[in-house]
Amino acid sequence: MLPRIETLIDLALDEDAAFGDVTSESIFAPEHTSNAHINAVQELTVCGIEVARRVFHRVDPALEVKVTCHDGEQVKKGQTVLRASGSTISLLLAERTALNFLQRLSGVATLSRRFADAARRTGTGVRVVDTRKTTPGWRALEKYAVRCGGCHNHRLSLGEHVLIKDNHIAAVGSIRQAVTLARAAAPHGAKIEVEAASLAEVRAAIKAGAEIILLDNMSPRQIKSAVSLIDRVAMVEVSGGVSLETLADYALPGVDVISVGALTHSAPAVDLSMTLTASRK
Amino acid sequence: MLPRIETLIDLALDEDAAFGDVTSESIFAPEHTSNAHINAVQELTVCGIEVARRVFHRVDPALEVKVTCHDGEQVKKGQTVLRASGSTISLLLAERTALNFLQRLSGVATLSRRFADAARRTGTGVRVVDTRKTTPGWRALEKYAVRCGGCHNHRLSLGEHVLIKDNHIAAVGSIRQAVTLARAAAPHGAKIEVEAASLAEVRAAIKAGAEIILLDNMSPRQIKSAVSLIDRVAMVEVSGGVSLETLADYALPGVDVISVGALTHSAPAVDLSMTLTASRK
Amino acid sequence: MLPRIETLIDLALDEDAAFGDVTSESIFAPEHTSNAHINAVQELTVCGIEVARRVFHRVDPALEVKVTCHDGEQVKKGQTVLRASGSTISLLLAERTALNFLQRLSGVATLSRRFADAARRTGTGVRVVDTRKTTPGWRALEKYAVRCGGCHNHRLSLGEHVLIKDNHIAAVGSIRQAVTLARAAAPHGAKIEVEAASLAEVRAAIKAGAEIILLDNMSPRQIKSAVSLIDRVAMVEVSGGVSLETLADYALPGVDVISVGALTHSAPAVDLSMTLTASRK
Amino acid sequence: MLPRIETLIDLALDEDAAFGDVTSESIFAPEHTSNAHINAVQELTVCGIEVARRVFHRVDPALEVKVTCHDGEQVKKGQTVLRASGSTISLLLAERTALNFLQRLSGVATLSRRFADAARRTGTGVRVVDTRKTTPGWRALEKYAVRCGGCHNHRLSLGEHVLIKDNHIAAVGSIRQAVTLARAAAPHGAKIEVEAASLAEVRAAIKAGAEIILLDNMSPRQIKSAVSLIDRVAMVEVSGGVSLETLADYALPGVDVISVGALTHSAPAVDLSMTLTASRK
Amino acid sequence: MLPRIETLIDLALDEDAAFGDVTSESIFAPEHTSNAHINAVQELTVCGIEVARRVFHRVDPALEVKVTCHDGEQVKKGQTVLRASGSTISLLLAERTALNFLQRLSGVATLSRRFADAARRTGTGVRVVDTRKTTPGWRALEKYAVRCGGCHNHRLSLGEHVLIKDNHIAAVGSIRQAVTLARAAAPHGAKIEVEAASLAEVRAAIKAGAEIILLDNMSPRQIKSAVSLIDRVAMVEVSGGVSLETLADYALPGVDVISVGALTHSAPAVDLSMTLTASRK
Amino acid sequence: MLPRIETLIDLALDEDAAFGDVTSESIFAPEHTSNAHINAVQELTVCGIEVARRVFHRVDPALEVKVTCHDGEQVKKGQTVLRASGSTISLLLAERTALNFLQRLSGVATLSRRFADAARRTGTGVRVVDTRKTTPGWRALEKYAVRCGGCHNHRLSLGEHVLIKDNHIAAVGSIRQAVTLARAAAPHGAKIEVEAASLAEVRAAIKAGAEIILLDNMSPRQIKSAVSLIDRVAMVEVSGGVSLETLADYALPGVDVISVGALTHSAPAVDLSMTLTASRK
Repeated sequence: MLPRIETLIDLALDEDAAFGDVTSESIFAPEHTSNAHINAVQELTVCGIEVARRVFHRVDPALEVKVTCHDGEQVKKGQTVLRASGSTISLLLAERTALNFLQRLSGVATLSRRFADAARRTGTGVRVVDTRKTTPGWRALEKYAVRCGGCHNHRLSLGEHVLIKDNHIAAVGSIRQAVTLARAAAPHGAKIEVEAASLAEVRAAIKAGAEIILLDNMSPRQIKSAVSLIDRVAMVEVSGGVSLETLADYALPGVDVISVGALTHSAPAVDLSMTLTASRK
Repeated sequence: MLPRIETLIDLALDEDAAFGDVTSESIFAPEHTSNAHINAVQELTVCGIEVARRVFHRVDPALEVKVTCHDGEQVKKGQTVLRASGSTISLLLAERTALNFLQRLSGVATLSRRFADAARRTGTGVRVVDTRKTTPGWRALEKYAVRCGGCHNHRLSLGEHVLIKDNHIAAVGSIRQAVTLARAAAPHGAKIEVEAASLAEVRAAIKAGAEIILLDNMSPRQIKSAVSLIDRVAMVEVSGGVSLETLADYALPGVDVISVGALTHSAPAVDLSMTLTASRK
Repeated sequence: MLPRIETLIDLALDEDAAFGDVTSESIFAPEHTSNAHINAVQELTVCGIEVARRVFHRVDPALEVKVTCHDGEQVKKGQTVLRASGSTISLLLAERTALNFLQRLSGVATLSRRFADAARRTGTGVRVVDTRKTTPGWRALEKYAVRCGGCHNHRLSLGEHVLIKDNHIAAVGSIRQAVTLARAAAPHGAKIEVEAASLAEVRAAIKAGAEIILLDNMSPRQIKSAVSLIDRVAMVEVSGGVSLETLADYALPGVDVISVGALTHSAPAVDLSMTLTASRK
Repeated sequence: MLPRIETLIDLALDEDAAFGDVTSESIFAPEHTSNAHINAVQELTVCGIEVARRVFHRVDPALEVKVTCHDGEQVKKGQTVLRASGSTISLLLAERTALNFLQRLSGVATLSRRFADAARRTGTGVRVVDTRKTTPGWRALEKYAVRCGGCHNHRLSLGEHVLIKDNHIAAVGSIRQAVTLARAAAPHGAKIEVEAASLAEVRAAIKAGAEIILLDNMSPRQIKSAVSLIDRVAMVEVSGGVSLETLADYALPGVDVISVGALTHSAPAVDLSMTLTASRK
Repeated sequence: MLPRIETLIDLALDEDAAFGDVTSESIFAPEHTSNAHINAVQELTVCGIEVARRVFHRVDPALEVKVTCHDGEQVKKGQTVLRASGSTISLLLAERTALNFLQRLSGVATLSRRFADAARRTGTGVRVVDTRKTTPGWRALEKYAVRCGGCHNHRLSLGEHVLIKDNHIAAVGSIRQAVTLARAAAPHGAKIEVEAASLAEVRAAIKAGAEIILLDNMSPRQIKSAVSLIDRVAMVEVSGGVSLETLADYALPGVDVISVGALTHSAPAVDLSMTLTASRK
Repeated sequence: MLPRIETLIDLALDEDAAFGDVTSESIFAPEHTSNAHINAVQELTVCGIEVARRVFHRVDPALEVKVTCHDGEQVKKGQTVLRASGSTISLLLAERTALNFLQRLSGVATLSRRFADAARRTGTGVRVVDTRKTTPGWRALEKYAVRCGGCHNHRLSLGEHVLIKDNHIAAVGSIRQAVTLARAAAPHGAKIEVEAASLAEVRAAIKAGAEIILLDNMSPRQIKSAVSLIDRVAMVEVSGGVSLETLADYALPGVDVISVGALTHSAPAVDLSMTLTASRK
């Protein structure tokens, strides 16, 4: 497991159980064992199942954990996604942390799945992608959940992909100048994307040689005009308040990508719960 | 600033800017300066303003940052919440991380404010409280945002407050037994709370001497009966799917506390943005 | 194992062996193996045995470690508490770190056991509890050692349990005011405790509705008066220089809790040592 | 400040205040200010004063902190060692952590001072030194406190100084063999010390060319014989249960060093406290 | 300063000075002050000057540090690059760590400068770029030093830029298949690069739509043929043992990029030293 | 494995794969498996083989890893040093990080081996030792690699061994004074070394009782005079720009140690590579 995910698991256990679990430790002997099931309380696209497994093992390497689904799988209401058995105190100590990872990551995957399905229904081949509007500390996990839900990732960080926005253009004077500077300095493997809020800016971006043009907060009508101006010399990205309801209006022919911040910043949690049963051993 | 918050800021900067910002570093000279404003794009209850300030200083201690509101303040659409000036590269590098903290914490505070207002309107003195269903790594910050929105906190971690749930009771055999064990072992400062899903369990919890009784997923009618059984010998908490719409139905006389997981796990982000203007210096 | 304990183990190994063990690495070949025993050099209440096991495994997962007692157990002089076998270099590298954890935690447990026994002999049911006067970095471990010795924990941190002290009262003006503010803001699960240094303050605390009253540095005679004033409407805690010798004088009927900082801040280490024998394999 | 000390401060604040201070935050407004004094409640050798200062600044860089003594200074009962002023909430949040560092480090320094004074009174020039029996995580701080109290340090870690003990000798077969191997492999700057429990071993150590000979658990009479055998060809260290009371018996002419584990593992805490007064500003 | 660089500074100080500096602390009083100069002992391209400044401040925030050059500057033999004044103990404690950063980063920058100059002299506009063959922990710093020396960066990590190598092609069966899968799954902002070791593979890469073709270990003659096959439909990268001596042979017209692992993995350190002078204050 | 090495492995994986490996994850299914071999591309002295093994297991504990050589072994061109099998995605994700450790540590060991061989050929018994001029974060690993190559270590850190240099002497006034202060304060186990740049300083160092005298940047002729002055009352260390070519000129009779900074700061990487083959399972 990548080190950054372990860091997040450790932070989570530390904030919930730095001093252990007073309730369970008062009630159960260390040798008391149980079986636990984590079930989906609603239909959902599961994500985070290996993280949950790792939470149980981090708390107690002696727990036996069996994963019964895989990330990205569509899970029915009531379906078991993970079984664990061993020390009752360990199972209860890990419960909430494991569920907190699952409910959030599956929440992102479930919303992404709905967007991916909506995109597929448009038949235009458009991709729905996420943004950098992620929960601090969770970038890699949330971007992974987006992929598990069938959507795609936009740039991961500030480091590689060049995205020239209104603030850059205003400060440097012109789109042409910004693109020229970026091309000279940025790695040869970095694509250069330019944000455009008007058709004039679209024209400037084309002329400057942008490889991707981001149409920012344009209406479907404006997008149509922009797409025909661009005429396939650059990739077309649409951004700005697109919802599940309005996606089809923006997924016009020639639009390659629609970016949706809500995939990561406003996905509601989905509901999963853990149940203990007596251990037969 | 408490160490744990610094850890989260560092994780966030690291995942967004471990290799710097290729766009801004290509376009701007290190000595280029600007002024930045962070504005609310919608009405909201602000939270995280000191965290945002710290993000700017973590990136570049030479930035001048001026906070123009305080956590918990109701902020109008278009209102500026923070101003920063200095190196353009530093401002743009910090931008998204600062906004990601603000949009999430203010999202939790804004939703909490709506619940707190709804609770106040019931006139019963009921408290709306959060749960442990928080984003891993964010427990302290999200619980703080809940308070900024006028709601209250339930237990912070597994360590102090005893909460005996269905899984404990099933495994140990009886509510009486669980309460007795917990009282003997738990710190004298810990209150003992028991979850009850039926009137029979409410009776058992009263008899066992529970200090707080959690009515789990009961209808308003059942709650009314439970409250009258409890008759003020214990505090009454209501839990289970209470929404802004149904809150008034559950805030019956005698109910002290209503816990709402959605405050932290499903609050949508609110919208804030940063604008650069030319620096006069 | 909880992440915070791993952090402490890593700090300990790092400060003792960041550059390895020049003595053993000079003398032994990597394939040289031995058996090691950790024995009690004096009678003691053992604590930290799982931490010690983890130290050996952290240094070298290939070591075989067998624990031959459990935390809280009363161990005789000469008794073996842990056996380990494998690489001689690994065993010697882990030795001092493992012993340093054991000697300190068992020291706290052994002193706590003496206090718990003294409390039991009073026949009043009084609890001896620790304080927040713990070794920085060791809070959770030392509070655990206190429990292993049969005493109990006072509040774990500043976060949950409200304790209003002289400094608070002086700054805010009155006990009543302090309690009122705390009750309004603190979580419903937090008990409110008030420190009182005189009978007048005891009366004020009672009137303000304190749930626990801490009698600070009172003589047994004053405590007797305070207990009769309080008359069971609040829990009674006695604090201030109580020793093993004077405990019985303070454990008056009606006193629920006696807090003793020395349990964690002044427990002398107990003596354990490790012996190597030739490995037969 | 060295990074490792910051780590320990962060661990300490995190375990005491990960969720803030519910008491003070309930009672005081953020803008409420006070003055704080940390005073010695008993006579002591102070140590940790810069660590305490850093604790206050870590919590709140806006606090003004003035140190009124220096590490190693002999401080009278009632003397103020540190003054801080600023936010009341910040002062109270830092209080216990700052005191916990001071009480422990000053405890070690105070005990070391008593040993150093006893050594000086023998007039033999003997040094009292510490051991590696330190509190895990605290090695550098405790060794520093020992020096502040006028004693000296033995080896800091396993890395540099070679110390061949009974376990090494038993496993490798002979003192000569162990010394030869160590000399060939260890850095040229490392002195080679050999533990001897009998006069025969002392002879073997001399013959092998040990630079320091550790007389382990010998009686004063045996030590006298050993010293005369060694006859200044090696430094002489005495080890094993030497107390303040018996120090003079062991500090025989020719003994260079007496090592005392209790300096770090069993020094009782000394008493310091913090008082708040109203802020005039 | 970005968190990752602070982490590396802390590791460096910790490994050199976890127990302080026994020499300086033995010789100088805490109040002894000096002036320090760091000078180049040879001509070099300086890099790491802000890291060095931060090392001094990390050790002691009271040191005054003045930087007298900027990263990427060509510095003459004997030229001062940084001045610091304050506590002598602090200056000496920071010295080696500051120099160790400077000598390595300036070493990478100095070698990169020679490659950049050689590339410029070819007049073909070819870029010399680094690889992922960096020192573990130093990726961001070494890539920055490469840019300071006038070369460019290849991909920063495994995360964004797709690079399909012989191992991928062998395992998946064909270049076409690998490119198709990558295009479907990778972010739209990621360029797709394919490694080719023969003209047949170059043809397959062109047909599959590779955006960059890496000519692996080809002779100048083979490169010439490959370039003419590619005919500007993809960017051309040359890789494999290119040295300062042979660079001109490989920088053929049509070659866009030459990657050189030695920039980061085999740059020799350059020589800088620190001198103390008496402080006049 | 010692905690500090794990920290470096985690930093390395994090900088290379914080967001996973877009190429392999696009191309291979999670269940696709392969066999991997790491081979030497040139003759070399291998070092870091256990670190490499740990890199594979850190990425994926299910990988089977078999080490086929040991650190310090002389490895032929083409020889396999490590085999791993399991998930293709995991193998490729770990590849570069494992190689980056191996190429650097083996580079240091290979250069050290050449120096050790050159020293042996002089027949004087002189030791070649490293310095503190190591890569920040890598001190322990690089010093270990030096030993694997048959050279020895100079002091590990500033903490134990006293080394009085020109800066110390200038600031304190005289060698005698510096040595006296150091002897009084430093641990009894620390040897005292003095740097001397002239025969006058050599005389002063002898008189002051230095245990090691470092002849700084002296010519072979000066060294000869210094050695005869010292006449075996102190160990003799030669330092300053000694290369493989000139080593024999400096390894004069009576010189005990020659220190060479280049062992760690300028060792070029050696070449190793990883090849995948289809997995038969």
